[in-house]
Amino acid sequence: MSRALLVIAHGSRRDSANEEFRQQVAGIARLVDHTPVQAAFLELAEPGIVDALHQLAAGGARQIDVFPLFLNAGRHVAKDVPAEVAEAQAALPEVDIRLLDYLGKSPQLVSLVAQLIADANSGAE
Amino acid sequence: MSRALLVIAHGSRRDSANEEFRQQVAGIARLVDHTPVQAAFLELAEPGIVDALHQLAAGGARQIDVFPLFLNAGRHVAKDVPAEVAEAQAALPEVDIRLLDYLGKSPQLVSLVAQLIADANSGAE
Repeated sequence: MSRALLVIAHGSRRDSANEEFRQQVAGIARLVDHTPVQAAFLELAEPGIVDALHQLAAGGARQIDVFPLFLNAGRHVAKDVPAEVAEAQAALPEVDIRLLDYLGKSPQLVSLVAQLIADANSGAE
Repeated sequence: MSRALLVIAHGSRRDSANEEFRQQVAGIARLVDHTPVQAAFLELAEPGIVDALHQLAAGGARQIDVFPLFLNAGRHVAKDVPAEVAEAQAALPEVDIRLLDYLGKSPQLVSLVAQLIADANSGAE
């Protein structure tokens, strides 16, 4: 069985922002080998991280990668997300849950932003 | 004179997260033609957006691109950032301030995340 993937966002009070994230996760799902791929939220929207990990496990997942779609290692990335993953892992000893690096840790993020800014200028000149 | 660039983050209560963002902006500065390139925060850290735009204008900038390093169009992206940019623009009629699309609006973000997840797996297998 392939790995499952849980992509985490902070969550917003605006439904449209949460729906935008779900669409981003759907786009990611089309490009990775993981299955199933699910979206979860740290707060302000459902499902939460622990619930989503339990749902994936109940669906048969035994290996789950967790990707935090966060830009910087604030309290959420440094403490809250690891704490929720650890809580789920303790309750699901039969599942191998792996917390991946958050988006902002990648040097490729800087390259992408620079490219987007350059593209905006070439379109505007 | 070249365009100036202001890259905006939400801001964190953790100094290390704000410093991480400043380092990301320094990395972006090495890859774009804009000069100067500055970091600013919507809240919780300094400088704020309006202050940073005034500083760039005082330094001689007459064209400023503003890039919101945000993943989803929550209230901050939809309302707060445009309001602060509009406030600065009203006070600085001699400066052409252009608010670029936020990071999460780019389809390339989805591609990058999928790549990072694939890379994490190829390294782990």
